[in-house]
Amino acid sequence: MRISTEFKTALQHKIDLKTKPLGALGDLESLAFKIGCIQNTKSPQITKPTIVIFAGDHGIAKMGEVNPFPQEVTSQMVYNFVNGGAAINVFSKTNDINLKIVDAGVNHQFESDLEIVDAKIDFGTKNYQFEPAMTEAQYEEAIQKSGEIVHQIYNEGCNTIGFGEMGISNTSSASLLMAYFLKLPMEACVGSGTGLKEGGINKKVKILSEVFEKHNVNNTLEALSTFGGFEIVMLYGALLKAAELNMTIVIDGFIVTSALLAAKTSNTTILENCVFAHNSNEQGHKKMLEYLDVKPLLSLGLRLGEGTGAALAIPLLKAAVNFLNDMASFESAGVSGETEQG
Amino acid sequence: MRISTEFKTALQHKIDLKTKPLGALGDLESLAFKIGCIQNTKSPQITKPTIVIFAGDHGIAKMGEVNPFPQEVTSQMVYNFVNGGAAINVFSKTNDINLKIVDAGVNHQFESDLEIVDAKIDFGTKNYQFEPAMTEAQYEEAIQKSGEIVHQIYNEGCNTIGFGEMGISNTSSASLLMAYFLKLPMEACVGSGTGLKEGGINKKVKILSEVFEKHNVNNTLEALSTFGGFEIVMLYGALLKAAELNMTIVIDGFIVTSALLAAKTSNTTILENCVFAHNSNEQGHKKMLEYLDVKPLLSLGLRLGEGTGAALAIPLLKAAVNFLNDMASFESAGVSGETEQG
Repeated sequence: MRISTEFKTALQHKIDLKTKPLGALGDLESLAFKIGCIQNTKSPQITKPTIVIFAGDHGIAKMGEVNPFPQEVTSQMVYNFVNGGAAINVFSKTNDINLKIVDAGVNHQFESDLEIVDAKIDFGTKNYQFEPAMTEAQYEEAIQKSGEIVHQIYNEGCNTIGFGEMGISNTSSASLLMAYFLKLPMEACVGSGTGLKEGGINKKVKILSEVFEKHNVNNTLEALSTFGGFEIVMLYGALLKAAELNMTIVIDGFIVTSALLAAKTSNTTILENCVFAHNSNEQGHKKMLEYLDVKPLLSLGLRLGEGTGAALAIPLLKAAVNFLNDMASFESAGVSGETEQG
Repeated sequence: MRISTEFKTALQHKIDLKTKPLGALGDLESLAFKIGCIQNTKSPQITKPTIVIFAGDHGIAKMGEVNPFPQEVTSQMVYNFVNGGAAINVFSKTNDINLKIVDAGVNHQFESDLEIVDAKIDFGTKNYQFEPAMTEAQYEEAIQKSGEIVHQIYNEGCNTIGFGEMGISNTSSASLLMAYFLKLPMEACVGSGTGLKEGGINKKVKILSEVFEKHNVNNTLEALSTFGGFEIVMLYGALLKAAELNMTIVIDGFIVTSALLAAKTSNTTILENCVFAHNSNEQGHKKMLEYLDVKPLLSLGLRLGEGTGAALAIPLLKAAVNFLNDMASFESAGVSGETEQG
């Protein structure tokens, strides 16, 4: 995506001539500008906004040491998604967003007639306390499959995509990835996840520090395939494909942002396609956003994942694009402009 | 509104049993709880959400000393509202919100066939640099009329109402009211309004300090009728009526909150009906919210008024109510709960 200075000036001019004081729509103005730049038009559109949830299981979850919920909750929540009972279902319906559920590698055989995209790599990853989460072949397969899923959604007319995830223990993978990509000590990368208390967090830091020391990872491929999970590698592949297709990508919380840290090493301009939905309550997320030097749209203390933050932010994207397209200008509305002032 | 402890416990229990970690929906959980308490039901609804814009002119605006835009912009913007070209039109349409425009006292005679509620008190207020903005009779008339407007909207089935305003120079009235109700020096209450720069702000502080000193106001009636404007007094009356009718009130920015400061002196429990849409970029607004000890839903750097913040926040109210009504519980979805942890 290479946008000319002339185009940017014209786009900003269009925003400035709307019937409002200069800059009075704050972050929505930056958002409209950003989406206009992504689409290289002064009249951008949000078409068929979609959220894709990648679900996968983690070997470490079976130990029950880093997660307050048992591993079965991943598959149980996938059923909940299919039946429309999860938060992401409610928010997607509230905000007219298409929702797709992908089995990236859940430790359960789902019935073939369920509305799930079957992209299962395996029945959960290996436990990285003992061995890498996945093989290189599995890693490649996950990227390939998630890229195809995004391409299919793009072909159906979607230009704005958000990602969510479900996977008991996946905050542990995200913390490990954060520690690797941001070069931060594990304490700075570990939070309460689905609800650990102080003792649990300290234990999680200890376990994950040992995991980090055990594996001497040296690049993005090694980091992702060692720490997993399948859903995070799929997020990585999906983010890269969505950027390649020049879609607007709505970044959710801690897990999705950990995949983005990886994706940014493979596509250094990917942030040009990303808008940041929210600041999660999982403590590491704020540091990731600071590292990326981006400002999220919402700060509601969410820490649920599933793409819920992205779903809640999409009305703001629609509002931004709509004001750019539908608001009158001072001239068209016959409204007087600012007078000279000291 | 008197809510039993039993009801509150049952409502919180319903929220806690939803398929999500405890508290993981952050501020949306507090919002769902609040709306449930207002409606005294575990299954609250948002019906016919409506935003009412009160427009009025200010005597001081003719001097051009506190406002970068000329007074005519008030009436020009009312035409813009009627023609659907303003930001509030776009956001209301985007988020399925009804919009009503009220002429509270614009210095212009509108054609009778326009879609405007005619509640004109006068052709703008008097200039409080020389005399009170309005008479006591005008003040009473404004409260009466705005109450009737809210009652009519309530009778049409609306239970969730937001207010907006348009009135060149009305940040000056709001600053004066803020200085009175919060007992703060004028510097703390004056911001850039529609776009004053530093020199302009200093001049505005000086002028408004003189106005404040000139009138020795001693109660809410005197404050509102002296500093105006008609649209702010109507906001005051509308807020009181909406609380009396036990509606959910979505509080917008600086001007609306200044009217709320006044309303709180007349109805000390009014905050129980209020949700706070956003933190405006007008500097005084943050202090007002701190004074009221409330947390706004959005912080987007908006400083436009018109009710735009309220319109952008309403999807979050819908999301909150919908998750409370439509999300599955752990039991209904067959999802395992949290295990014991240290």
